Amino acid sequence: MLPFKTLIIIDESSSVAVYRQIADCLIVMITDGVIQPGTFLPSTREMAVLLDKHRNTIVAAYEELITQDWIETLPRVGIRVALDLPLIKPRSFQEGGKNKTYSDPAKFSFRHDIPGPVQHSFPLKRNSIIVNDGFPDADLAPFDSMLREYRKLMQGSRLKTLMSLKDFGGTQALKNSTVNFLNDSRGLNISTDNLLITRGAQMAIYLAAAMILKPGDHVLVSDPSYYIADEVFKQLGANLIRIPVDEHGIDIEGVENALKSTKISLLYIIPHHHHPTTVTMSQLRRTRLLELIRSYQLPVIEDDYDYDFHYNNSPVLPLASSAHNSNVLYIGSFTKLLAPSCRIGYLIGAANFIIQATNLKRLIDLRGDTMMEEALSVIINNGELDRHIKKSKKVYNERCDQTSLMVANQLSHAVDFTKPQGGLALWLKFKAEYPLGDIISKARSAGLLFAGTAYYEGEDQKHNGMRFGFASLKESEMQRAVEILRKITI
Amino acid sequence: MLPFKTLIIIDESSSVAVYRQIADCLIVMITDGVIQPGTFLPSTREMAVLLDKHRNTIVAAYEELITQDWIETLPRVGIRVALDLPLIKPRSFQEGGKNKTYSDPAKFSFRHDIPGPVQHSFPLKRNSIIVNDGFPDADLAPFDSMLREYRKLMQGSRLKTLMSLKDFGGTQALKNSTVNFLNDSRGLNISTDNLLITRGAQMAIYLAAAMILKPGDHVLVSDPSYYIADEVFKQLGANLIRIPVDEHGIDIEGVENALKSTKISLLYIIPHHHHPTTVTMSQLRRTRLLELIRSYQLPVIEDDYDYDFHYNNSPVLPLASSAHNSNVLYIGSFTKLLAPSCRIGYLIGAANFIIQATNLKRLIDLRGDTMMEEALSVIINNGELDRHIKKSKKVYNERCDQTSLMVANQLSHAVDFTKPQGGLALWLKFKAEYPLGDIISKARSAGLLFAGTAYYEGEDQKHNGMRFGFASLKESEMQRAVEILRKITI
Repeated sequence: MLPFKTLIIIDESSSVAVYRQIADCLIVMITDGVIQPGTFLPSTREMAVLLDKHRNTIVAAYEELITQDWIETLPRVGIRVALDLPLIKPRSFQEGGKNKTYSDPAKFSFRHDIPGPVQHSFPLKRNSIIVNDGFPDADLAPFDSMLREYRKLMQGSRLKTLMSLKDFGGTQALKNSTVNFLNDSRGLNISTDNLLITRGAQMAIYLAAAMILKPGDHVLVSDPSYYIADEVFKQLGANLIRIPVDEHGIDIEGVENALKSTKISLLYIIPHHHHPTTVTMSQLRRTRLLELIRSYQLPVIEDDYDYDFHYNNSPVLPLASSAHNSNVLYIGSFTKLLAPSCRIGYLIGAANFIIQATNLKRLIDLRGDTMMEEALSVIINNGELDRHIKKSKKVYNERCDQTSLMVANQLSHAVDFTKPQGGLALWLKFKAEYPLGDIISKARSAGLLFAGTAYYEGEDQKHNGMRFGFASLKESEMQRAVEILRKITI
Repeated sequence: MLPFKTLIIIDESSSVAVYRQIADCLIVMITDGVIQPGTFLPSTREMAVLLDKHRNTIVAAYEELITQDWIETLPRVGIRVALDLPLIKPRSFQEGGKNKTYSDPAKFSFRHDIPGPVQHSFPLKRNSIIVNDGFPDADLAPFDSMLREYRKLMQGSRLKTLMSLKDFGGTQALKNSTVNFLNDSRGLNISTDNLLITRGAQMAIYLAAAMILKPGDHVLVSDPSYYIADEVFKQLGANLIRIPVDEHGIDIEGVENALKSTKISLLYIIPHHHHPTTVTMSQLRRTRLLELIRSYQLPVIEDDYDYDFHYNNSPVLPLASSAHNSNVLYIGSFTKLLAPSCRIGYLIGAANFIIQATNLKRLIDLRGDTMMEEALSVIINNGELDRHIKKSKKVYNERCDQTSLMVANQLSHAVDFTKPQGGLALWLKFKAEYPLGDIISKARSAGLLFAGTAYYEGEDQKHNGMRFGFASLKESEMQRAVEILRKITI
């Protein structure tokens, strides 16, 4: 017989009744396999003696187990562990491969109005060319420098200390480096109190919007706009008001009219290399927009995801660098400067806003990647990042020239486009006789996969346009991609 | 004179009026420093000739610039660029160090009801001991293996391809490995359709809760509960109903009574090594809870952050492994198995739920860390992760024994605690005569910093308890930490 006295541990001081403690221990023994199905248990009288408890206590415990189907009484034979255990069947008991727990769809109500990305067809054809929205070239990424810093960090004790502390939205070292980097490159004049480190610009957009928007609020966005930002605002319950974009940026009169007629809670704007159209907002509109921001006290998310890649001349400074009465929340990312996998972005705002945004970030993403943040801080401080930007800017500028030339020469029958002043993508507007859906599916069959966001559905149908990210393509790949597009459009 | 004909580019086909295009170009030249403040511009007549435009067009352009304060007319002298440019002042123009853009607090309305973490006082004292909530030891982390895999990945072309594609909530390789890992270790029986890769368990909690909760909904949580999960639910507008936890886990009758009296939208529960109390739910309660889940069709977030560290015997299987009609959303993380900086977690649910959760995740965190995900997948597949778990479990088990013994021997006058069956922390309940706030501040002065969440404020005052993470402490550090606590309590 099992040493029940040792196995069944009773805490008399517990608030849990003794009979239930006994029942509980027996269930654990059964589910752990210590007592096998079909095994007879000691009678209540025997068990009472074994455990030195009143018999009624044992009776109550057994009754509990019977109610729960763990044990069964065979009249005049005894009490045995059920042959068919009620519930907790280890995996080996289950019929092979049959999913018992998640075979049904979830039946409780949940929000289900978020459109998802279009699935890629897997497996990709061998040698397929992938054209994305405008990602940096992972082959150029400063992984060597990052890994060198990782190794150094592993050897010291600093990393362990940092990892043991709470995260207040980025390591102090990265906050300091980022402040210097932004003040130098963008004419900002911020301190670390104005900065929150995020997982890429996307999280910064989400946090800023979630801080500001209430259901039913109105948000001004451009038409077209960055698709996934639109979805963020919708998800938070906001109504979008779309203002057209032309070759000088968003239509400022449209913005002003909207402000006059409606209570606007937020303007989302991408002044540099607008997504998707690649347009850079003119100085004049910039000036007017700043006036509107100040006079209406208009909260703004300025998404400047692509600032560092400007080819023709020095980039226009962000709105955030001018007087805006703390209304402009400035968002950017190191991701485009490093690699798609290195998702470190930032949100800039007034100190009181940043404190709350940091608290909100913690609820969504408890800690950043301490190791990556520290390594990035080192390569900002020692100048490697600046050198890397200079080097990759040169490459991307060439690729922009090359792709633009190829598109102009080979696709002008089908495509309208303007060579952008900067950024990592072209905006190809297909003429109406080339519906984008057809183009994309024909291209895929021919080995050219568009992994970016196409603008050809619903309200966006009128744009019939698509981002053509050139930055991560070698010249031969651009050539093949453009050739495929030519072939399927003639 | 400047080559205005070359510099001022006019697009006659543009929808923007020619005079405004001219004004716009001039503003760019002024802000770029091509035309310095004080420089005289050609007269309207001269400029009309230079640009081959009607003089009235130039007059309109100049008037625009005058309105905007970019240029000024000196009667009988000419038109010059304003000495005091209206807005866009490069950084060098600003008074040194003075923050013009973010010196004010944000004045627009934003949500500001999220309590933040208590700030650490920096700089830390030399040789301060940091005790966290229960983090893994970064010195044990398999960084070497991860870095080895990073280097391999950098050499192939696979990584670049993966980074060019959209992210559907984790790389396919990591999804496959994670499904195998979870099915083997937890008796789940899921496929990749049931899995979303997240940034740690925290993001999984946020996503699951944001999918389910509407403002005004009621959520059942334990009392005490994981503080930051509570904040997530509150942030989403839910009301919390707190159900006490005793040494067998959450009070099931309390849960049932709540279900009977109120419409409950969600139960948040941590059956293994409950946070903060470290209690593991008994089999009996587990069984009853599963019955309630099925009969009430109750949506549940099962947070199993610490499953893999169970010392006494094999852990009880998660609720998610039993029949629950797809109501249990199962959440966990690799972070505790790797290092605090390696934030890869997962959310398990019915396929229809996971699709939507993946779409929501994309709005918050566009992509995961492809490199880390691929490397983790390799060390799961080749068995390194299992060996690492075994190895670190042994270390943590010893540290649990050592710390428990020290606390029992040296702190029993001040502290109630029960040695946990697993996990990376003790739950120290200080007796009422030792208010936790005092203890924490005295400890800090003595060189012992508690970086975890203390339960001694507001409603939590009654608990007067604190997590003591032992897993990342060496024996000498535990000794010093416990000694400091002894000294300040006698």
